[in-house]
Amino acid sequence: MGYGEGNVRFVLEGGGEVRVRVSAGESLLDAARKANVAIDAPCAGNGSCGKCRVKLLSGEVQSEPSRHIAPEEYAAGWRLACTSFVKSDAAALVPNTALAYRKGMKAADLRGKRELAVFEAFRRDLSELRFKPDSGIEMVSVELTPPGPDDSTADRERLLAALAEGKSPGGPVAVSLYALRKLPSVLRESNFSVRCVLRRETGEKAGYVTLLDVFPGDGPAPVAAGLAIDIGTTTVSALLADLRTGEIIAEGSAGNGQIRYGADVINRIIESARPGGIERLRAALTDECILPLTDMICQACGLPPVCVYRVAIAANTTMTHLFTGVYADNLRLEPYVPAFFGAEGLRCADLGLRAHPDAEVLVAPCVGSYVGGDITAGVFASMLYRKDMFSLFLDLGTNGELVFGNSEFLMTCACSAGPAFEGGDISCGMRATDGAIEDCRLDEASMEPDCGVIGPAGVKPAGLCGSGLIDLIGELFRCGVVNAKGRIVREGRRVSRDESDIGSYIVAFAHESATGRDISISEIDIDNFIRAKGAVFSAIRTMLAMADSSVEDIESIYIAGGIGSGVHVDQAVRLGLLPDVPAERYHYIGNTSLAGAYAMLTSREARREIERIADGMTYLELSSHPGYMDEFIAACFLPHTDGRLFPGGKTDE
Amino acid sequence: MGYGEGNVRFVLEGGGEVRVRVSAGESLLDAARKANVAIDAPCAGNGSCGKCRVKLLSGEVQSEPSRHIAPEEYAAGWRLACTSFVKSDAAALVPNTALAYRKGMKAADLRGKRELAVFEAFRRDLSELRFKPDSGIEMVSVELTPPGPDDSTADRERLLAALAEGKSPGGPVAVSLYALRKLPSVLRESNFSVRCVLRRETGEKAGYVTLLDVFPGDGPAPVAAGLAIDIGTTTVSALLADLRTGEIIAEGSAGNGQIRYGADVINRIIESARPGGIERLRAALTDECILPLTDMICQACGLPPVCVYRVAIAANTTMTHLFTGVYADNLRLEPYVPAFFGAEGLRCADLGLRAHPDAEVLVAPCVGSYVGGDITAGVFASMLYRKDMFSLFLDLGTNGELVFGNSEFLMTCACSAGPAFEGGDISCGMRATDGAIEDCRLDEASMEPDCGVIGPAGVKPAGLCGSGLIDLIGELFRCGVVNAKGRIVREGRRVSRDESDIGSYIVAFAHESATGRDISISEIDIDNFIRAKGAVFSAIRTMLAMADSSVEDIESIYIAGGIGSGVHVDQAVRLGLLPDVPAERYHYIGNTSLAGAYAMLTSREARREIERIADGMTYLELSSHPGYMDEFIAACFLPHTDGRLFPGGKTDE
Repeated sequence: MGYGEGNVRFVLEGGGEVRVRVSAGESLLDAARKANVAIDAPCAGNGSCGKCRVKLLSGEVQSEPSRHIAPEEYAAGWRLACTSFVKSDAAALVPNTALAYRKGMKAADLRGKRELAVFEAFRRDLSELRFKPDSGIEMVSVELTPPGPDDSTADRERLLAALAEGKSPGGPVAVSLYALRKLPSVLRESNFSVRCVLRRETGEKAGYVTLLDVFPGDGPAPVAAGLAIDIGTTTVSALLADLRTGEIIAEGSAGNGQIRYGADVINRIIESARPGGIERLRAALTDECILPLTDMICQACGLPPVCVYRVAIAANTTMTHLFTGVYADNLRLEPYVPAFFGAEGLRCADLGLRAHPDAEVLVAPCVGSYVGGDITAGVFASMLYRKDMFSLFLDLGTNGELVFGNSEFLMTCACSAGPAFEGGDISCGMRATDGAIEDCRLDEASMEPDCGVIGPAGVKPAGLCGSGLIDLIGELFRCGVVNAKGRIVREGRRVSRDESDIGSYIVAFAHESATGRDISISEIDIDNFIRAKGAVFSAIRTMLAMADSSVEDIESIYIAGGIGSGVHVDQAVRLGLLPDVPAERYHYIGNTSLAGAYAMLTSREARREIERIADGMTYLELSSHPGYMDEFIAACFLPHTDGRLFPGGKTDE
Repeated sequence: MGYGEGNVRFVLEGGGEVRVRVSAGESLLDAARKANVAIDAPCAGNGSCGKCRVKLLSGEVQSEPSRHIAPEEYAAGWRLACTSFVKSDAAALVPNTALAYRKGMKAADLRGKRELAVFEAFRRDLSELRFKPDSGIEMVSVELTPPGPDDSTADRERLLAALAEGKSPGGPVAVSLYALRKLPSVLRESNFSVRCVLRRETGEKAGYVTLLDVFPGDGPAPVAAGLAIDIGTTTVSALLADLRTGEIIAEGSAGNGQIRYGADVINRIIESARPGGIERLRAALTDECILPLTDMICQACGLPPVCVYRVAIAANTTMTHLFTGVYADNLRLEPYVPAFFGAEGLRCADLGLRAHPDAEVLVAPCVGSYVGGDITAGVFASMLYRKDMFSLFLDLGTNGELVFGNSEFLMTCACSAGPAFEGGDISCGMRATDGAIEDCRLDEASMEPDCGVIGPAGVKPAGLCGSGLIDLIGELFRCGVVNAKGRIVREGRRVSRDESDIGSYIVAFAHESATGRDISISEIDIDNFIRAKGAVFSAIRTMLAMADSSVEDIESIYIAGGIGSGVHVDQAVRLGLLPDVPAERYHYIGNTSLAGAYAMLTSREARREIERIADGMTYLELSSHPGYMDEFIAACFLPHTDGRLFPGGKTDE
């Protein structure tokens, strides 16, 4: 390590090695980022989450002690990458668990299948509500007269003349460069009989048509596909649809590659404001996640990505900025001003997406720094804006977003729930993918758990996802293991305490788990959860108060977002996360962000409607609201300091 | 050279080395192309032009004998790269002369200077003819109210609202991704007072405005620049203009990097149809020539390339196809059908140009496979289409293009002149750049020449450019050194004959030349020239006959193109290249292709007019015209087999 530099070699458990040159004093996490080794760091590298465990194979690092590394683990070489600083050439093993957030990229061909029941229902709803497939993407067959000695009209002008003879779906046609480059060979391959993919333009080009693609007239009918993407802070979900019929062809999901810069948006915004940061975060999302996911989805159904003629994105405001490569630092600084609410004229080629280069990228409009396109798209999908009665829309992901209103008004606010609901900020938290404990029952007497794990039968648990966390804490609270302050107040074989007397409940012992370590929940985790649920509940209270309404006025509560359908409402109410109203008023409506993006893809009317929703929504900035902090503090108990709000629950104190 | 592979090392005379792996049997020229070493090959590598001389430093090649390599040169290691096939690892010196076509890239700052006299006159003409600068690019200053606790409207929406309050030059504004990415920091740098570069849209977006760029309101006023490019087969010329005033800021020129695939368009088309060929030819033009030329021009006047908000291209049909990356092979195959005449919606980012990514690329429309945008732009610049009297427009470059007509009709045709007029196909030919002999007088008695050489005083001659070639052959003919058949019929110290009895006239001896070799013109060169001039003259005759006109009807003959103002009309008439009409009817009008591109850049009305010219022009395919071949054969004498056509000249037989 002369001259203050050295080499770090990362050995990937899944296979492969990466070497990188580092300066002395850099952390292993920095080295990994530099080497494009995706070590998870939900806490952005401040040592608190314990997700970036690596095993030192050789060399020396200077590590701070961590409650996440037991002494015998330390002796075996285990370190947190974020708080281990390089002192010499070193080699470190990167276990697969460190990559858990990225693992589980998956895709499925859905043609002829019924897996997307929620979507099929949504498509039915859309169609009843006049949102027929109306993407403006059409396929037209044209027969041209071949050129001859007396007719050497150019290919493009020959095709345009034929389209003008009544074959074009309306308006003058502009030929995209992509189609122009294909045209000469396709015309001659097919004896001048071709199929054209045309896009009826809207907005500034309304009344015009763009020729996006040409295919031989005699081959199999090509598919004009569209890709809808919900870019979550933690998870990216996407589906591929036939733009002409609305049929959903394939779907897929993957972890957001930005996770190594932090699980929450704030740490990512901070990183993005560093030199080169915007490009790093854009690449971590697009190049490492959206592109391979697109490929995988397209492969699942056998379509080339260049047949994707439109992409619709719904994402929170930060993700929308980082996806488009726009400076985001003002989102976290008062007065919290986004660079844009809406954006137009975006093209796949400019954003580095794998699709037809001229494919439009539609972005669901944002309404504030912390209420983004995922919410405007989601409100559309929930259809609450068409109802006379009041509804409450809750999207519980890394951030919590709330919308309250009806057909006459909509108000919205966001609260910083932290990543607890998606498995971040929790020592054994993980995304809702294979190995995640998604539900849990406790025997009150023995405190023994009975857990459901995502994945094939017999899969060992690797951690807790959001719904599993709520279930487990709900059960611990119900069984009196945890008190209203979140302290563990019973002892037993599953309860342990560390040297600082911080209690933990072990839901799976090391020998039962996929990681070979105990899967447990500590009082610190429970504290994090309580703050998260307190943020959500106090936001609901504050917003309702501002609208002069109360929980009783709400006819329907729609639960959307990453936490999804796995949540047990009874547990969420027991813990004071959700208001104590009759269970039948709760509706799980799945990934409404993705559903809204799908609607934008296939229906121009839906797109306009989402824009109207965004324009009409009143955005409340909770952080500047005087009553919010008091509400929050009052809500940081299980279920609440004011027991009257939860007549069905119980308070221990 | 085991396994049939080996390494070739190219040592560049100008400095540097390049190594490349080749298969046994590949030519050194192929190896050089693979290694991106730009060895000139105007004849596309068939051994005829002798331009690709390299000196073998080590290793072995199998070379065919060549009339271009003297025995003592062969002994010293000189070979033609195109006909030398690799047998072992080898090293070869690439002399600067082999790169002459690429050399001489140059640029000049023109602000406050009068160098572009032709252009200034053209600008005056344009402005008298109602073509005022009207680029649609405007600069608007806007003061925004900064955001505050009660106003967190996004930056984009804040700016759009301010523009809508009467500052926008008309129509709703769309924000380009480039401007959106700059917006947050520019707003905060300048305390929310900004200058906007706006583009009023035409065509399919008519009625809308695009925000291309934002600058702080308090800095120096930015320049909105446009780049006009004439892409010649041999030379690329460009100028940078202020889009708002029309002022020409800088100019520059460079050799077309495609020269290593052949001097004429046919060889390049053939190369482009090979696997990967379109991309190779696109890159040789754009990456190797247009991009560095853009940089050099921008540096000359101190503007960053991203301040180029529009690019206008005028080029022949082949260059237009290869520039846009469109398959060109049908241009050379009957019935000679281009892929396109016009193209719209092209953007700098999609074509890999160095400029604002959303800068439009306007392409002058083509009218046939061999009459391109350089001619439609050129006809506009000549203004002949506005005159009542008949005019003839001649563009004598690598191809010869002709336009005949007036304000009522326009007809056009092309003839394959070959590259003789631009110095290709001639053993000592070169571009009209430093070292080129551009004019020449002969003493009839002594046959001693008196030459003018382009470049600083005292520069040694390196070769002959087109005008020098015409002058020299004209003088040789006038002095009876060359007869009507192109044979050298006098002997003397400047006349030499090789072993095949092919005569040459040495215009500069080795010790007088920059290359250290004789600069001479052989009977083969004269033959090439005669075929070129015969092609042009017979095309004129054929076209006039089809229009029931004759030379006497022509009021003005405009000479444009690479051969430019250097041509002496008396010599061109003496040789039967140009019709024998009074000298005052001839007008040198310089690079009208570049002038027309400049007009497209700065005037939307000019752009429409050029489109109308293209639409109204009748294209004749000479090759299929029955009388043309007879005319051509009759014209392959000096000046012509029919002496009555040249009463002022003389025929020797």
